[in-house]
Amino acid sequence: MMNKFASGLNDLITDVQGVRVGHSTLSNGDVQTGVTTIIPHGGNLFLEKLPAAVHVMNGFGKSSGLIQIEELGQLESPILLTNTFSVGVCTEALIEYMLADNPDIGERTGTINTVVAECNDGYLNDIRGMHVRKQHVFEALRQAESQFDLGAVGAGRGMSCYQLKGGIGSSSRLLTFAGQTFTIGALVLSNFGRLEDLVLDGRAIGRELVAAMNDADGEHRDLGSIIVVLATDLPLDARQLKRLAKRAGVGIARTGSYVGNGSGEIAVAFSTAESIAHYAETVISNRLAFHEDSMEQVFAATAEVVETAIAKSLWSAETVSGKNGCERMSLRSVLEDTGLTYDDVAIR
Amino acid sequence: MMNKFASGLNDLITDVQGVRVGHSTLSNGDVQTGVTTIIPHGGNLFLEKLPAAVHVMNGFGKSSGLIQIEELGQLESPILLTNTFSVGVCTEALIEYMLADNPDIGERTGTINTVVAECNDGYLNDIRGMHVRKQHVFEALRQAESQFDLGAVGAGRGMSCYQLKGGIGSSSRLLTFAGQTFTIGALVLSNFGRLEDLVLDGRAIGRELVAAMNDADGEHRDLGSIIVVLATDLPLDARQLKRLAKRAGVGIARTGSYVGNGSGEIAVAFSTAESIAHYAETVISNRLAFHEDSMEQVFAATAEVVETAIAKSLWSAETVSGKNGCERMSLRSVLEDTGLTYDDVAIR
Amino acid sequence: MMNKFASGLNDLITDVQGVRVGHSTLSNGDVQTGVTTIIPHGGNLFLEKLPAAVHVMNGFGKSSGLIQIEELGQLESPILLTNTFSVGVCTEALIEYMLADNPDIGERTGTINTVVAECNDGYLNDIRGMHVRKQHVFEALRQAESQFDLGAVGAGRGMSCYQLKGGIGSSSRLLTFAGQTFTIGALVLSNFGRLEDLVLDGRAIGRELVAAMNDADGEHRDLGSIIVVLATDLPLDARQLKRLAKRAGVGIARTGSYVGNGSGEIAVAFSTAESIAHYAETVISNRLAFHEDSMEQVFAATAEVVETAIAKSLWSAETVSGKNGCERMSLRSVLEDTGLTYDDVAIR
Amino acid sequence: MMNKFASGLNDLITDVQGVRVGHSTLSNGDVQTGVTTIIPHGGNLFLEKLPAAVHVMNGFGKSSGLIQIEELGQLESPILLTNTFSVGVCTEALIEYMLADNPDIGERTGTINTVVAECNDGYLNDIRGMHVRKQHVFEALRQAESQFDLGAVGAGRGMSCYQLKGGIGSSSRLLTFAGQTFTIGALVLSNFGRLEDLVLDGRAIGRELVAAMNDADGEHRDLGSIIVVLATDLPLDARQLKRLAKRAGVGIARTGSYVGNGSGEIAVAFSTAESIAHYAETVISNRLAFHEDSMEQVFAATAEVVETAIAKSLWSAETVSGKNGCERMSLRSVLEDTGLTYDDVAIR
Repeated sequence: MMNKFASGLNDLITDVQGVRVGHSTLSNGDVQTGVTTIIPHGGNLFLEKLPAAVHVMNGFGKSSGLIQIEELGQLESPILLTNTFSVGVCTEALIEYMLADNPDIGERTGTINTVVAECNDGYLNDIRGMHVRKQHVFEALRQAESQFDLGAVGAGRGMSCYQLKGGIGSSSRLLTFAGQTFTIGALVLSNFGRLEDLVLDGRAIGRELVAAMNDADGEHRDLGSIIVVLATDLPLDARQLKRLAKRAGVGIARTGSYVGNGSGEIAVAFSTAESIAHYAETVISNRLAFHEDSMEQVFAATAEVVETAIAKSLWSAETVSGKNGCERMSLRSVLEDTGLTYDDVAIR
Repeated sequence: MMNKFASGLNDLITDVQGVRVGHSTLSNGDVQTGVTTIIPHGGNLFLEKLPAAVHVMNGFGKSSGLIQIEELGQLESPILLTNTFSVGVCTEALIEYMLADNPDIGERTGTINTVVAECNDGYLNDIRGMHVRKQHVFEALRQAESQFDLGAVGAGRGMSCYQLKGGIGSSSRLLTFAGQTFTIGALVLSNFGRLEDLVLDGRAIGRELVAAMNDADGEHRDLGSIIVVLATDLPLDARQLKRLAKRAGVGIARTGSYVGNGSGEIAVAFSTAESIAHYAETVISNRLAFHEDSMEQVFAATAEVVETAIAKSLWSAETVSGKNGCERMSLRSVLEDTGLTYDDVAIR
Repeated sequence: MMNKFASGLNDLITDVQGVRVGHSTLSNGDVQTGVTTIIPHGGNLFLEKLPAAVHVMNGFGKSSGLIQIEELGQLESPILLTNTFSVGVCTEALIEYMLADNPDIGERTGTINTVVAECNDGYLNDIRGMHVRKQHVFEALRQAESQFDLGAVGAGRGMSCYQLKGGIGSSSRLLTFAGQTFTIGALVLSNFGRLEDLVLDGRAIGRELVAAMNDADGEHRDLGSIIVVLATDLPLDARQLKRLAKRAGVGIARTGSYVGNGSGEIAVAFSTAESIAHYAETVISNRLAFHEDSMEQVFAATAEVVETAIAKSLWSAETVSGKNGCERMSLRSVLEDTGLTYDDVAIR
Repeated sequence: MMNKFASGLNDLITDVQGVRVGHSTLSNGDVQTGVTTIIPHGGNLFLEKLPAAVHVMNGFGKSSGLIQIEELGQLESPILLTNTFSVGVCTEALIEYMLADNPDIGERTGTINTVVAECNDGYLNDIRGMHVRKQHVFEALRQAESQFDLGAVGAGRGMSCYQLKGGIGSSSRLLTFAGQTFTIGALVLSNFGRLEDLVLDGRAIGRELVAAMNDADGEHRDLGSIIVVLATDLPLDARQLKRLAKRAGVGIARTGSYVGNGSGEIAVAFSTAESIAHYAETVISNRLAFHEDSMEQVFAATAEVVETAIAKSLWSAETVSGKNGCERMSLRSVLEDTGLTYDDVAIR
């Protein structure tokens, strides 16, 4: 992409220090699905919550745990991504995971809010079979680290994006304020859009591909969804993080989507700058605050990092065949097949 | 209560024709919990959706399925109520239940949005044990009918309200427009409030009870939550149902609560007047519409039916002992014990 | 009222240090209206903004300036209250007032967001005549101080509440955290409700009054509106202030209203604890933060202070005759006329 | 633009039958501002309201009348566009205009909700001078017709877009359902964006222009705002119109903006298909309803019509010099000056 902002070391959400990502991938014939987790920091998330916000761009979705983030502006669990019908089992497993480390939950203190977001991978995956098990959640959580794979892995295994193979994408951008460098990272689960609409780095390559592929009978609806997770070490409060989350929509629109009727588009954003203690030592404390005027650059970087994360989800995904022999081609295969050239310098 | 509106035949949410309610109750020592379902009509809810809305008064809650109702204004599954940590298993079971009747879901059409709401029954129930199973959900769904029990049953088994035994309450009110009679019904899962704040029919009986009980060391926080389900056969659209749902807060406030920090207060409202076909025969059709000016009486009746449903949840609940010998007294026992008299003529 | 919290020195919103209130009252035959201003602090509000939030309980209202508060969480002007058709002239005057002190607005920096809220005083006032002039706004701003009148004054001159004379009410409550005392103050412009619904300190006195007055042909709709302004020196951020603003609805409900269809009910809340500089010296700074758990008592106090402010608006208002000889009786006259006794100890 | 949908007869919002647009332009030295009105139908709008909705993309704005649209889903006045500091006088004038035709307002019925939206034209216009008068509002209303000018006229006179001359743009698209043709029209007041970000029809022409102009010291912030008005004769209800309004953001993003911190971005949408009577003959009536699934194409057309309207605002605007000799070049002049060629076939 024509980046205006520099990327972090790995151009991944995990460039925000402390953030880790893990996958559990199920790939076996009709079963093409999985679980991806984003762990915001290495401590006890229930005891050390993070400022967070949610923005629902289009609420055709079944994610859980969003209402409490909206009210309290706090994230107190890892975030799980999975297929639509596995939100239940992921919720159960994530509660068990959090209970194990927190014997006070449900006893000496209240309950825990777990966050699970989803897309519908029913085109490639036997979603009705509900194949995700708790063990897959635990596996994803266990394997989370700062290096992780992109594309047709984890929750992204069965996802389709612009009628190509989509899935997990991630990117990061650096910002400098008062001599200090900060990072904004994005991870997307991409599962939306029509091929004819695809735009990459401002090039309407979808139109070119449709023409080259002579694909007269493509789907005509922007089905599916996209989940965007944004992490930053900027000291933003919940209200500011919500404004950040809203700019995810700009990144999505830049790739060509018009945010279709049936596409659940949801963004979750959190800040790792300072945690919020579950058991407060003092009622009133000091916290870092970020001046609103400087949100300007933050918004510009957010639009860019989301656009790039989506592009990378396409660029990284391999071709996958799944349920009933349905197939989603990788962007790279399609480019090869059609003889179209694409300079991938910025998104590889 | 000093009713301004007449009640329906059974003074239950099921006075709205077609609505059924079912319970599955788990009561065994430390396990005091369960599942309650509200089935909006007798047909296939996925194929024949209902206009619906959600209002989150205080989002300290973990309910699922609300985002899509907010976006599309449609309810397409039964509503389940349970404890906080059983939302996951209830979601799984409800998806299975809906898939069984709808082979097209996840194949020829999209997915399904299931609605599960919750309160924290951890005071009386071993909530960490996650004792609800899919079979309990299926049992509640199977047993749903127009006659059903109130109080310490189903999801209400372990709930506490104003530090007394709470749980399931329900009531209905009749309204007449243009010679036609309509019904508004409410079902609540009550699990909120401090005894000192309780007001019944305008009488601040909580203060009296605290004085009579000499209870110096009561809890001082309005913990817990309340879920309010509103049903009506008035032809209200989603926007109007949202306005209705907001008036649930008036009913709650009338019983004395100030809507505490940790109390997840959520209302879901639906109209049975006309369904919305999943597979539309025509893009443009005719629907009944209700003139906004007449919402006036509808709001007054909604405040009243919710107030009464909460009062009935207290009046109907028996004393329950549960986890670690913790106990919640029934309102009736406490009145007896303290020698306070209460004319229950309207809420029994 | 049965106060659970102590009141501040004057039981007025101005017990929050720095807050001042001013009125301009127009009372001449058919013209019964005016302007009331709440000035949050004595400095330059544009340069030293305050954290703020808005909650719209029922949006049947024409207030202006709320959208930017919602987005930025900041208040940068005094708040004006007036009648519905004078929002325009008040906006103009308030902009002029702010421009006079801020030559940079519209030149070296952006514009200014002015806040004007309203109720419909058309029952007593010739609202179509649009009698408020800029000079009335300037007069209210000039006369603002910590001592101010309640009742049928300023914007409250022509307002009706529970079909009695309403108008301006105010109250305050004290809270202690970590040995430090904080204040929550409320000012209401009351213009809503039906007499039959009125509840004062838990007593359903409206029913009694209707019976005693033999008033068979009262209005049957909860018309009008209420504007609630909440001030506090607690260091709450915008999200927390929004939660505070939501509890205004509890105070309103306690006085008997069900929040009618045509009643615009809006709450604005701000914190004076720390200002936010328009021209930031540093992008990242330190700010005081209030732990969410302690919101519990803050909410309870908010419900109480709003309930009391409404009661005081009724108790303070004199009988007013206005347009076409229409009249609203003062609560005290009606009590006298009906021979009902009322112990006003707490609300006088 | 690469249109996917056909335009209406004039490619203007007035292709939606009954919609008229009028301007009043002030252009004299430092005074470069004005008023634009959109009149939704030719009848009495207070008596025959239209379903309507609002979406606030970024609430850094001072528009008025939006709260009631959000609550009631109804538009009952013409929409006025003007500069930020003239919202007050426009509100006054619009109330007077509506009162003249409706002697019952404020007497036998309630008040009226007038809608005025704004952008900050302070770069070219002496906005502090508050030069708009009521007469300008009346002039715009009087001159409203189906043919109207685009560019630096009316409220658009002083607006800047992508650091070029912006202002009024408009476009329309046709959709066919069940053999019937429907229209979606957009009118924008464009006043946002940085030149370097400008994208026209997918071409990042802003980058090219910045390079060609050698403009090293341009502004680096996306200041200003955009107001989008959407009209359609599709029978959409308020909830559906809100979903439509949200897609305005896609059109904006396609032109390159990231929705800056200080940019108030607001969309208002209404449907002319069927009016809603102020005085209802019956409480329950029949209304046309549009099936949600078909929103898909409606969304795609909305994104396109907004993108085109913005492009046309740039393409139509002439170069304007204003306050203190400040100048905004027209896009066409800049293209000429830089020698860049642009095929305007679709946007002229």
